[in-house]
Amino acid sequence: MNASPHVQHLNPNAIALCALGRWIASRHWVPATGGNFSIRNAEQSMLITASGKDKGELSPQDLLPVSWQQQQIQCTQGTPSAEAALHAMLYQLDPQIKVVLHTHSVQATVFSRLIEQEQYFFTGYEMQKAISGCSSHQQVLPLAVFDNTQQIPELAEALKQRWQVKPLNYGLLVRGHGLYVWGHSLEQAKRHLEGWEFLIHCELERFSITGKP
Amino acid sequence: MNASPHVQHLNPNAIALCALGRWIASRHWVPATGGNFSIRNAEQSMLITASGKDKGELSPQDLLPVSWQQQQIQCTQGTPSAEAALHAMLYQLDPQIKVVLHTHSVQATVFSRLIEQEQYFFTGYEMQKAISGCSSHQQVLPLAVFDNTQQIPELAEALKQRWQVKPLNYGLLVRGHGLYVWGHSLEQAKRHLEGWEFLIHCELERFSITGKP
Amino acid sequence: MNASPHVQHLNPNAIALCALGRWIASRHWVPATGGNFSIRNAEQSMLITASGKDKGELSPQDLLPVSWQQQQIQCTQGTPSAEAALHAMLYQLDPQIKVVLHTHSVQATVFSRLIEQEQYFFTGYEMQKAISGCSSHQQVLPLAVFDNTQQIPELAEALKQRWQVKPLNYGLLVRGHGLYVWGHSLEQAKRHLEGWEFLIHCELERFSITGKP
Amino acid sequence: MNASPHVQHLNPNAIALCALGRWIASRHWVPATGGNFSIRNAEQSMLITASGKDKGELSPQDLLPVSWQQQQIQCTQGTPSAEAALHAMLYQLDPQIKVVLHTHSVQATVFSRLIEQEQYFFTGYEMQKAISGCSSHQQVLPLAVFDNTQQIPELAEALKQRWQVKPLNYGLLVRGHGLYVWGHSLEQAKRHLEGWEFLIHCELERFSITGKP
Repeated sequence: MNASPHVQHLNPNAIALCALGRWIASRHWVPATGGNFSIRNAEQSMLITASGKDKGELSPQDLLPVSWQQQQIQCTQGTPSAEAALHAMLYQLDPQIKVVLHTHSVQATVFSRLIEQEQYFFTGYEMQKAISGCSSHQQVLPLAVFDNTQQIPELAEALKQRWQVKPLNYGLLVRGHGLYVWGHSLEQAKRHLEGWEFLIHCELERFSITGKP
Repeated sequence: MNASPHVQHLNPNAIALCALGRWIASRHWVPATGGNFSIRNAEQSMLITASGKDKGELSPQDLLPVSWQQQQIQCTQGTPSAEAALHAMLYQLDPQIKVVLHTHSVQATVFSRLIEQEQYFFTGYEMQKAISGCSSHQQVLPLAVFDNTQQIPELAEALKQRWQVKPLNYGLLVRGHGLYVWGHSLEQAKRHLEGWEFLIHCELERFSITGKP
Repeated sequence: MNASPHVQHLNPNAIALCALGRWIASRHWVPATGGNFSIRNAEQSMLITASGKDKGELSPQDLLPVSWQQQQIQCTQGTPSAEAALHAMLYQLDPQIKVVLHTHSVQATVFSRLIEQEQYFFTGYEMQKAISGCSSHQQVLPLAVFDNTQQIPELAEALKQRWQVKPLNYGLLVRGHGLYVWGHSLEQAKRHLEGWEFLIHCELERFSITGKP
Repeated sequence: MNASPHVQHLNPNAIALCALGRWIASRHWVPATGGNFSIRNAEQSMLITASGKDKGELSPQDLLPVSWQQQQIQCTQGTPSAEAALHAMLYQLDPQIKVVLHTHSVQATVFSRLIEQEQYFFTGYEMQKAISGCSSHQQVLPLAVFDNTQQIPELAEALKQRWQVKPLNYGLLVRGHGLYVWGHSLEQAKRHLEGWEFLIHCELERFSITGKP
């Protein structure tokens, strides 16, 4: 099931993910080798960025094949991102998810620490419509916030429990850590990334003038 | 009346609008496939960006011919921007308007939500002179703010009513949504875009220090 | 005395000034065709940017030869920047000045409106040493602030009067308008531009946290 | 012991440092010819940037060989950075240090002036793990802050004294001046630079909303 490096090299989605990584790095959203990206690969497997790589300088060989069974993940080649279990959980929770992007912007990181609740409710922004399923600025669009932990399987389990109550809106924050977004295609995942970053940035800017509500 | 894709491909204004789109995207003013641009095409018609396209990656084929009669708009090819009716209204209100640009910057979006009145008055900025018709920093330069709605024809009608009282200053804000600017040429529309964004950014920065007045 | 366009085309300083303009535009310090640049050309004359040009897209032909006698300026070719008289005054006040740069950053514009005095005193910044004549962060480095006016000869006269009391520190602010810097070479003028912008940006950032002093 | 310019030209680390300098300049972290960079060269010697160079336009010839004996530094070629003694001290304090980077970002400069203590404690950020030796967001990660001085040997001595109590965390701030980071390789030094800048930027942003703690 694990694709060979040669296969990754020829995988057009892998090439496109590396290009998206360069764009994300140009926004300064994956500093200091932070962040990680994956694409669904085959039955119960994904290609995920190797640990410690600069996400603005990826080549397809830096995407490692990782397979899963429940919360057991397996990689026979290189050292995948320490957060692979969270990616694998997302792919298991929704078979339509094809891409997962995890970024570390200053804005999302700061915002996540200001929000003490389990979710933040966005409303009044046209940009909410960038998030699939939201069709009006008048809707209330929740973004889930999870406490950070160094135990990624615990985070994956917490995600699963909240998802089973209600699927999340193509994004979640880990407090003091960063943003996860996902999508049914690279294009959609990118749109969700830009949409959530925009909404978060707007609220932070508003807080800096009107104070935190 | 509808130009063929082949004609768009050769239209130098369409090519120049795509280049301007790349520049606007480089400023991060059209994130998440947001925003839309148009140029007047022929009698009662325009070329307007297709819905859902990344505005930093436009080619002339992504500009769709749309014609209008009053507030009825018609497009025989592709899916034009959902906000085409607002563009069409601007072209009808002033025959000199050749270009309309709609952007979603963080600054304009946040600013539009902070302003509760129907317009905001800028004064004391040399940059006001970037807006055609303003010749001194001592003038008071109003920028209209409209409530957002998912009913674009209603927004177009509200614009028409205010315009008939007094034509607007080459720009308007839609609350929580973004900025519209226009001009008699691509160069002028770009200048109005940069000018209004600058003035808005300055006031936001000032509010963050002195508080909202 | 007026150089022909052909001569400008071959003038290496003119070419270098256009390149510097592209860099300044990339910092977003000359939006909406704002700002103007000049270099000393010959006895009592300068090359100055034509009015209304995008300062990130200059070619040597956009630099117009302007000569002066006292506060009378003369240009036989094109329409030079409306602020040519202020540039000419600087060249007359100090024969060592070879380059004058005028920019419109958001930071300098906002800062200039927050400062109600005739000058602002910077101290405690290592970056002060970027300004010629300042050798320690412990010095107090004044930056002059002038009220804006549409009568440029009046601004030039106000500059002359302050200069005769004490020459300014390679920079001045015009309130609500922008920053002027100058230098004995292009390299020095660029260093003064970056230095003053940095110091202003730092103080603005500090005000946004500690409040305006 | 001093390498000839020809040798520098062929030194792959020198070439890589110049490339890193261009990237750092693109972040606007070395404005106005500020900042300086060095790499360990040979026994008791380094290559360090020449004084007054634009750090975004370095070529290997701009890296000057400087040797040291205790706090005496020697350069037989050109004028090295005025802060060479601080670099030399770091190389003496830890033989594993191979690269030292000194930058002047607005954020680090402003932050350093807001902190009145001798060190600032970061906690709660996943990004702390970008700093070698920190393995959890729950750790408390101190960043040392030194008063600025024009007497670099005094600063080097102050650094030595604190280091002997406890080695610093791959970074230090000089108040009102900027950030120093170092690493065992160019890649690690870059990661430390991005990591510290990110953490500082986050705290500044947080202060602007919640006030300084």
